[in-house]
Amino acid sequence: MRTLHVDLGERSYPIFIGGGLLDRAECFTPYIAGRQVAVVTNETVAPLYLQRLLDTLAGYRVTPIVLPDGEAFKNWETLQRIFDGLLEARHDRRTTLIALGGGVIGDMTGFAAACYQRGVDFIQVPTTLLSQVDSSVGGKTGINHSLGKNMIGAFYQPKAVVIDTATLATLPARELSAGLAEVIKYGLICDEPFLAWLEQHIDALRGLDAEAISEAVERSCAAKARVVNADERESGVRATLNLGHTFGHAIETEMGYGAWLHGEAVGAGTAMALEMSQRLGWIDAPARDRGIRLLARAGLPLVPPAQMGPEEFLRHMAVDKKVLDGQLRLVLLRRLGEAVVTAEYPREVLDATLRADYAALARQA
Amino acid sequence: MRTLHVDLGERSYPIFIGGGLLDRAECFTPYIAGRQVAVVTNETVAPLYLQRLLDTLAGYRVTPIVLPDGEAFKNWETLQRIFDGLLEARHDRRTTLIALGGGVIGDMTGFAAACYQRGVDFIQVPTTLLSQVDSSVGGKTGINHSLGKNMIGAFYQPKAVVIDTATLATLPARELSAGLAEVIKYGLICDEPFLAWLEQHIDALRGLDAEAISEAVERSCAAKARVVNADERESGVRATLNLGHTFGHAIETEMGYGAWLHGEAVGAGTAMALEMSQRLGWIDAPARDRGIRLLARAGLPLVPPAQMGPEEFLRHMAVDKKVLDGQLRLVLLRRLGEAVVTAEYPREVLDATLRADYAALARQA
Repeated sequence: MRTLHVDLGERSYPIFIGGGLLDRAECFTPYIAGRQVAVVTNETVAPLYLQRLLDTLAGYRVTPIVLPDGEAFKNWETLQRIFDGLLEARHDRRTTLIALGGGVIGDMTGFAAACYQRGVDFIQVPTTLLSQVDSSVGGKTGINHSLGKNMIGAFYQPKAVVIDTATLATLPARELSAGLAEVIKYGLICDEPFLAWLEQHIDALRGLDAEAISEAVERSCAAKARVVNADERESGVRATLNLGHTFGHAIETEMGYGAWLHGEAVGAGTAMALEMSQRLGWIDAPARDRGIRLLARAGLPLVPPAQMGPEEFLRHMAVDKKVLDGQLRLVLLRRLGEAVVTAEYPREVLDATLRADYAALARQA
Repeated sequence: MRTLHVDLGERSYPIFIGGGLLDRAECFTPYIAGRQVAVVTNETVAPLYLQRLLDTLAGYRVTPIVLPDGEAFKNWETLQRIFDGLLEARHDRRTTLIALGGGVIGDMTGFAAACYQRGVDFIQVPTTLLSQVDSSVGGKTGINHSLGKNMIGAFYQPKAVVIDTATLATLPARELSAGLAEVIKYGLICDEPFLAWLEQHIDALRGLDAEAISEAVERSCAAKARVVNADERESGVRATLNLGHTFGHAIETEMGYGAWLHGEAVGAGTAMALEMSQRLGWIDAPARDRGIRLLARAGLPLVPPAQMGPEEFLRHMAVDKKVLDGQLRLVLLRRLGEAVVTAEYPREVLDATLRADYAALARQA
């Protein structure tokens, strides 16, 4: 088992990484204050892992809450089912929520924990690669609004993150690729050596090589923890974690939540950020192609939906949370391994980026 | 203008108290970071005070959001209208929300500010006595759930509280009395000299004597600020602010939100807390009657609904936020001016309290 720490004063917490941690009670019990626990999961994950976690939690009064699966359900109506379950079973403010599932379950359970009786404890148990390397760490929680993704939420840190990498064995290949988009992101924004490591191990990762997976998860979580330590509430450097996300959110919103996986949209958005950085002259074409090639080898779609032109992108990007006083800030690359957040770019470069031929870029890369 | 300060480190803020502050831009502009402002109010308050506040905010891009009036609307559906208004007008995370209204508007606007884009600034402008002396100070925000009052919410502090006492001129007498229940509470739980002052000035307060009102609001806010300074997240002494609230919430839930005003239910609940404290031998009958007499002189109803026996009370009280590991903690009085939170009481004393004849107690007091 590998252990990392997110250092946030009294809100600090450990990240445990390893195969089979679902069965290890010592990863959970030190982080459960009372006798009541609610395990929040979804219809896909429950048949696979819920009973094992319940066995590990023997001795607690556990309420399982099983939600429908998918980004389309990351909304108030589904969140309400968590509150209903907690209130019907009379959970008090000493209860602990456990999120067993992917990013949607983690974001919703964390937000429910932030709001239930004005705040109760929660533990993240991410079961998808994307949630293991990104969304389970850092305390961003929330739900979608029909006018924008993650528009309603809270910064609220878990008491612990328990990453059982063995759960990836049941993850569909498409979701594994989606998770790799966020792994590659860390290399691009802040860790060029990790980018080089990924180029050597991308096939091993897609083949679920246990050692490679543990290494990639640990290096990703370590990068995330460093950034969150420096900027918990995203007043500065934390925004670089959103490389590819502003373009990607526009795709997700236009297509309807769930049509593209979040990681897929981020992958295509990252290709756009690489292209725009090259058009600004910040990185050269070989560097851009190196990034695009790695995204393609991860199995990610790199071509935005045919129905989306500049107008569609700009309409959705205008409500991005990184807009400040009407200025759209974008995460771009100064070089491979260094990202910046900036509103200082010519508008015509953005327009050209939105019109570029990504099918051709992917072919030549 | 009187000024108080709530000291919570980087979350500290001022409370301004005085007649006509709605027109004083210097109470607002230092606490507005960007150019966007949303004023959230309701259909009752808007015709009275919205335009005046908009005039004071000239120069900002202001979105007014007018909600229906009443505790029955303190729910997710109404909260959603705030989010809709913010997103449709493209408010970014540098926006400031201003709550113009009573406790319902303040609680909902504060919770919306806590959740919108994971947290934006807000200012409380309370226009009822109850919100001026209690709910606008301290950072408790939230909405009701059909299974319990204020079950969904956040601790989230405003940037400033601007109390224009002249707004009480348009407050219905019933709501003024409801606010006095919370004023009397401060005397009972932590300030016996204030209790004696209230006995001398209760008629002046009901007659809206400007000097008496300012004094009562300031002393109430000062008491609240002291308690919140000591215990922001209610791990200890802050719970004493809930004197009468556990019984009162049961009345509100049983009768449906809005049938009894919150302050009215707190008044009746406070009479029950006085009675239980006397039955435990902690205060004597003259002290109990002194409290009950002041509540009656404030114009408050002191007899619980005829349809509510011990069973109805206990069912609702079991989901109170002060329940910990199945134990119902109550706020009771050790003496007039000193409250304690305790689960150490014989069950039969609670039962007798729930069955007592409050009509007779009010007559004899």
